[in-house]
Amino acid sequence: MNTLPPEIIETLKKFLEEDVRSGDITTNVTIPVEKTALATVYAREKAVLAGIKEAEAIAYLTGLTYEVLAFEGNWVNSGDPVIRLRGSARTLLTVERLILNIIQRMSGIATKTYRMVSIAREVNPKVKIACTRKTTPGFRFFEKRAVVIGGGDPHRYSLDDMVLIKNNHITAVGGVHAAVSSAKDAVSFSKKISCEVRTLQEAQEAIGAGANIVLLDNFSPKDVGGVVEVLKSKGMRGNVILEVSGGINEENVREYARNEIDVISSGSLTHSYNAMDFNMRLSLN
Amino acid sequence: MNTLPPEIIETLKKFLEEDVRSGDITTNVTIPVEKTALATVYAREKAVLAGIKEAEAIAYLTGLTYEVLAFEGNWVNSGDPVIRLRGSARTLLTVERLILNIIQRMSGIATKTYRMVSIAREVNPKVKIACTRKTTPGFRFFEKRAVVIGGGDPHRYSLDDMVLIKNNHITAVGGVHAAVSSAKDAVSFSKKISCEVRTLQEAQEAIGAGANIVLLDNFSPKDVGGVVEVLKSKGMRGNVILEVSGGINEENVREYARNEIDVISSGSLTHSYNAMDFNMRLSLN
Amino acid sequence: MNTLPPEIIETLKKFLEEDVRSGDITTNVTIPVEKTALATVYAREKAVLAGIKEAEAIAYLTGLTYEVLAFEGNWVNSGDPVIRLRGSARTLLTVERLILNIIQRMSGIATKTYRMVSIAREVNPKVKIACTRKTTPGFRFFEKRAVVIGGGDPHRYSLDDMVLIKNNHITAVGGVHAAVSSAKDAVSFSKKISCEVRTLQEAQEAIGAGANIVLLDNFSPKDVGGVVEVLKSKGMRGNVILEVSGGINEENVREYARNEIDVISSGSLTHSYNAMDFNMRLSLN
Amino acid sequence: MNTLPPEIIETLKKFLEEDVRSGDITTNVTIPVEKTALATVYAREKAVLAGIKEAEAIAYLTGLTYEVLAFEGNWVNSGDPVIRLRGSARTLLTVERLILNIIQRMSGIATKTYRMVSIAREVNPKVKIACTRKTTPGFRFFEKRAVVIGGGDPHRYSLDDMVLIKNNHITAVGGVHAAVSSAKDAVSFSKKISCEVRTLQEAQEAIGAGANIVLLDNFSPKDVGGVVEVLKSKGMRGNVILEVSGGINEENVREYARNEIDVISSGSLTHSYNAMDFNMRLSLN
Amino acid sequence: MNTLPPEIIETLKKFLEEDVRSGDITTNVTIPVEKTALATVYAREKAVLAGIKEAEAIAYLTGLTYEVLAFEGNWVNSGDPVIRLRGSARTLLTVERLILNIIQRMSGIATKTYRMVSIAREVNPKVKIACTRKTTPGFRFFEKRAVVIGGGDPHRYSLDDMVLIKNNHITAVGGVHAAVSSAKDAVSFSKKISCEVRTLQEAQEAIGAGANIVLLDNFSPKDVGGVVEVLKSKGMRGNVILEVSGGINEENVREYARNEIDVISSGSLTHSYNAMDFNMRLSLN
Amino acid sequence: MNTLPPEIIETLKKFLEEDVRSGDITTNVTIPVEKTALATVYAREKAVLAGIKEAEAIAYLTGLTYEVLAFEGNWVNSGDPVIRLRGSARTLLTVERLILNIIQRMSGIATKTYRMVSIAREVNPKVKIACTRKTTPGFRFFEKRAVVIGGGDPHRYSLDDMVLIKNNHITAVGGVHAAVSSAKDAVSFSKKISCEVRTLQEAQEAIGAGANIVLLDNFSPKDVGGVVEVLKSKGMRGNVILEVSGGINEENVREYARNEIDVISSGSLTHSYNAMDFNMRLSLN
Repeated sequence: MNTLPPEIIETLKKFLEEDVRSGDITTNVTIPVEKTALATVYAREKAVLAGIKEAEAIAYLTGLTYEVLAFEGNWVNSGDPVIRLRGSARTLLTVERLILNIIQRMSGIATKTYRMVSIAREVNPKVKIACTRKTTPGFRFFEKRAVVIGGGDPHRYSLDDMVLIKNNHITAVGGVHAAVSSAKDAVSFSKKISCEVRTLQEAQEAIGAGANIVLLDNFSPKDVGGVVEVLKSKGMRGNVILEVSGGINEENVREYARNEIDVISSGSLTHSYNAMDFNMRLSLN
Repeated sequence: MNTLPPEIIETLKKFLEEDVRSGDITTNVTIPVEKTALATVYAREKAVLAGIKEAEAIAYLTGLTYEVLAFEGNWVNSGDPVIRLRGSARTLLTVERLILNIIQRMSGIATKTYRMVSIAREVNPKVKIACTRKTTPGFRFFEKRAVVIGGGDPHRYSLDDMVLIKNNHITAVGGVHAAVSSAKDAVSFSKKISCEVRTLQEAQEAIGAGANIVLLDNFSPKDVGGVVEVLKSKGMRGNVILEVSGGINEENVREYARNEIDVISSGSLTHSYNAMDFNMRLSLN
Repeated sequence: MNTLPPEIIETLKKFLEEDVRSGDITTNVTIPVEKTALATVYAREKAVLAGIKEAEAIAYLTGLTYEVLAFEGNWVNSGDPVIRLRGSARTLLTVERLILNIIQRMSGIATKTYRMVSIAREVNPKVKIACTRKTTPGFRFFEKRAVVIGGGDPHRYSLDDMVLIKNNHITAVGGVHAAVSSAKDAVSFSKKISCEVRTLQEAQEAIGAGANIVLLDNFSPKDVGGVVEVLKSKGMRGNVILEVSGGINEENVREYARNEIDVISSGSLTHSYNAMDFNMRLSLN
Repeated sequence: MNTLPPEIIETLKKFLEEDVRSGDITTNVTIPVEKTALATVYAREKAVLAGIKEAEAIAYLTGLTYEVLAFEGNWVNSGDPVIRLRGSARTLLTVERLILNIIQRMSGIATKTYRMVSIAREVNPKVKIACTRKTTPGFRFFEKRAVVIGGGDPHRYSLDDMVLIKNNHITAVGGVHAAVSSAKDAVSFSKKISCEVRTLQEAQEAIGAGANIVLLDNFSPKDVGGVVEVLKSKGMRGNVILEVSGGINEENVREYARNEIDVISSGSLTHSYNAMDFNMRLSLN
Repeated sequence: MNTLPPEIIETLKKFLEEDVRSGDITTNVTIPVEKTALATVYAREKAVLAGIKEAEAIAYLTGLTYEVLAFEGNWVNSGDPVIRLRGSARTLLTVERLILNIIQRMSGIATKTYRMVSIAREVNPKVKIACTRKTTPGFRFFEKRAVVIGGGDPHRYSLDDMVLIKNNHITAVGGVHAAVSSAKDAVSFSKKISCEVRTLQEAQEAIGAGANIVLLDNFSPKDVGGVVEVLKSKGMRGNVILEVSGGINEENVREYARNEIDVISSGSLTHSYNAMDFNMRLSLN
Repeated sequence: MNTLPPEIIETLKKFLEEDVRSGDITTNVTIPVEKTALATVYAREKAVLAGIKEAEAIAYLTGLTYEVLAFEGNWVNSGDPVIRLRGSARTLLTVERLILNIIQRMSGIATKTYRMVSIAREVNPKVKIACTRKTTPGFRFFEKRAVVIGGGDPHRYSLDDMVLIKNNHITAVGGVHAAVSSAKDAVSFSKKISCEVRTLQEAQEAIGAGANIVLLDNFSPKDVGGVVEVLKSKGMRGNVILEVSGGINEENVREYARNEIDVISSGSLTHSYNAMDFNMRLSLN
């Protein structure tokens, strides 16, 4: 069957309930209950395809059969069919909008991610482009999965996934070294510890205290380069993952990626994207 | 207390659970449990503010007190404080991202809607700008509410809210007149009936059959004008709401709005918007 | 599969959980787990049949097969079989009561509605008989659907479905005209606006302000007639739906229906009905 | 606080969500958010009052304060105030229908139960009048509680509450004695065992096998009397609870009650009752 | 299909969600999606088997097929296969831990119960060994079912299942007789009434007031014997179920069981048991 | 307020619903609704205290006030009061069992963990004792939190928390190096990668491929020592966390801990523990 987690299958049911509530009154009064149909989803612009597994799951949940015609992560062009569904005409019309809403959004994110990854990897073939927790409430799983489909990194899923020490935490504890050390003592060995830093000095402190990841927040590309050089010269670059973030987008990502960093994270992958255009065409039997 | 519906309060809890899951491990190991703080949300760019009621509800649900500093629907400028929260420092850090995710998205939609309404009303002071069902699954309530805050019309909330006859329904029934008539017979008197049409002929048919709303889908601005003229000349304009849709955006909305139409609907209000920039600053006590 | 909305399928599961809780202890200790049986639901009095789709859904959810023997909305007589179920004897005994509880109640409402519709339509063939929101909490969908099966109108489903201005709203705003106008400005174009009125004067005001529906509440049949006459004479009858309500039942519905009104609504359709008698007979294999 | 079980408090929230969904659009556009009011629920006919605890819980859940003016289980007359609520005018209007729907139904059942108990106890002061599992799906708790308020017995709550051996169970096991014995062996000592019987012979068999309760189903009043006499003469009456059921209503309950039986159960208490008339009057501050 | 109650099927889904959350990231990156496998669960120590129905249900819910190889309630030895599952290798690896967690715990309880039942029945072949409400929150159904599989009695499932009067209730009412009597008057005839007593005197009072069960709490085996003798001599033993509890375990259960009592209840069956060792071996196709 | 995550608060509500269902029928018929009381929870044996935050949350949810008298993680002795609750006597009796069930289990785990940590740290002061995913379904959060309170490490919370490559994964991919490498490529940089190994050779391979953690499963203490020596001699010990598991308990943990390892994990911490004895004493006002 489907490879989406069980909790996500329940979420898809809730999404359908949000749109259908007490029934699709238009379809119920115009389409005979026994009518069947075939419906095909088409791309209407060039995009990196995503959301097909969700479409499959919705079809399965509502008793439709389906045939996948294009693969997640591949480019599709305007006019390409991506999935074909068969079954009750009423059901097809009732699920149409939900399936499109998901494919359009997820493909929008996958496409945006793919473009950003491509630009960055031209100059740094190993760099990862990650999203953040700046996702639409209730829709995080799908947005993070779309980032992965587009070649990006999903970053931590939630607040229990990784330690990420930010300024307020540092202030409360009284410094980078203290914050990283106390986290190292207190959290599970199974968790990575990342620390957001504002200066080269803080970066060194974080590494010295054993951070797995150092996040250079709001550094210019050039300052990032400076930090990398110093860390390398001091032999501190080896065991740490360097991540940069702060206002990074398609325009400036190349400049950041030129540096020997590991990860570039960008909230815009999920908070400001355009849905790609897809539609569904139905032929009643 | 709060004026959000009870179902939405439950949804906000779910949103919080999505982000927190088994706990904010960073905050739990760096911030003492008894520490209190004051946190202020600031706009970082000009925007029409939305999402404050949601922030209030989240504060209430998590035992924080709050003071609203700017009103939903008003413009805020970069640097303006919009809401101030007080209470447990751990709680403040734990809810920060959710509150920002909601305010940023809802303000993005409200701002986009406001701009489109403003453009359209310069040439047609009574026209309504409506969104569609092209919303993020699970987040529809908030996106529709943001449209309303921006001066727009939320359109139908779900498939049980209004009859909206589209091409597939018309095909199944065998024509516009039959579709509208059969809907009129079959659905509750409490529902409006809208019919999507592709030609002037269909528009007349729909009105003749008693549609409350006629939706001119994918007409050029000029063709919309033509339809309006004919309907007026035939005395058919009076009792029907004329809605236009199909690829309408800030660039072309003015051309459509010049015609004597009632509603312009645009999926882009909710499917492709930029989150506005807001942040939260915290001072630990 | 089934045409009930996904949210309702979940509700049926909850209903089953309410009755079964930790298990049917009687059946579990008396019926072998591998035993199969055939069970038939019979009418035991004359009734308009309803609730069969719900029975199908419960059968489907619990792994039973079924054969529908009589149609919703048709009359059945005492002794008529209405649905036959096959499968695990334990399951059949466990779902028996829920299926009967639903069919009995829904058929009770459908029958009562049918009778009231028949009486009213003898004198006014186009009049609609509508129920209200006076439904059993948690069971509204089924009660409204039974009204529709009986030939009635479901009226608004909930508080977000239509504007229905009542006395308290009018008082708060300061008059019928102000209330209707402000609603017209503030709510979506997709919603109808109904206004409850107490006098002819208020009826005219409501129509003048653009109400789609005027609800004459607690008027005598004669006074309803008077209102209709005046509205017609003033040319105000055309574009408004006239609804009457207030203590209307099978005894007096004919008197109301004689007037040129569109809708008669009655809370008693759903708040005070008799369950029709049905039973289930089981033959163990 | 309230004495309703936590699961029921959640159910009340769901009931409110059913009615409010995405919001009370009428109230939201006519009543200012800061407006407060006082609302009083009045009886409009003589009734045994029930549902007040539910009204209190709804008030509590929605931030209203309240004052109980009449007690559950007492008679109220037309015009009597039963509960007074204070707070946000919007909230009061939004919860009005749910509170009335519950009080009206529960008082309807309590009144019907009270009448039947009164009739039966005139001739048999110790007899209990019990309801059955013929309740509205999803509303069982409230209907059973209303029976208790009216002086009745709630009988088993669900299928896991007591063993109740019916004909199909007896057939499957091969006789009354075998069925009761096997249940006695297999179920927990904490459960009572009731057995439905069709003849005097079966009644004796059930008692002999150790049934705690014998249910005489569809016996005439006279035949019930015959069974009682034989059991007494054989010394088998002492340790068993005798219950009768089958088409018992206010008309014939007295005839049944004259016999030395313990319990009379009647499905009609919950499947066919009239809602009592109550209304809410609001004064805006 | 399966014979577990519908509510329990939902609980199993929740259990799976607890373990899987946003996905099994190890399996997803190492096992191809189309890979199938066969997995067998083996006992690794001698145990009374339980939890197989739960394993079947989890298999069914996740699209796996299965073959049951050993029966619940039977002894299995180290090396015995108990259930074989087939299907997606990813799914098998994802459900492995949940299935084992359930079988291990339930078999631990069944084995412990079986041992205690065996010891007690050597000296009193009719005595029942019951568990209590000292179960793991959220896991009660499974723990009680394991007790039953091991030959024990599940006792009351929850607080609404039987009246069990303890010291605090007695103190509040003012004595054993008053407490039992008031319960007898106030609760449904369908419920048994048990009363915990501290002295012979209280035991007689409880029986005199009509208690169905008398629970001798924290009596020594010898004092239990004394109570039994007196009750028998006074003809009060016949109609009451005698239960003993308080620190009873495998060491002292025999001493208690020697007395003519009906039920021995022990919290340790569910609050302190060892999981039995089982594992799953997988062969990838 | 409380520092438990919002999802856990909902879980506690569910636990209460499991025990109370339709109401505490004993308390409802013996304790007057207006009665208040004071209840104190006492330890009845020496234990490391845990579960107090849960008790606080349950009190808060049910309208009780409380005073914490002993701290989680501290030793308490028989007779020590640990928390005092005040409020409705009915409520206190209704929540008693749930509060005790949680404190008893969590304290049992915390105590067992503390003992194992103490033994291990005598010989290796930095070693961590971790639990596993062998937790009671639905109760994992509480069992893991109890391990932390006892001084242990919670290990990964669920399957999405860390990559943990086991034999089946290695077989499917075709070797340790390939498995670790493919995981490193495919999962988020925010996740740690652990690899279970069966030989020294595999351990070296895993480290060479970049595993963050190497898990020596089912090695004898001596073989663990051998692996450590080789790794050190090859300069491979530095950047990897060494974890051992497989049948480790209080008896043999010291032998394992003597080696220079980082983590010892043991399923028995959560799958086989004894509840500690606590009770609640109530004084009615």
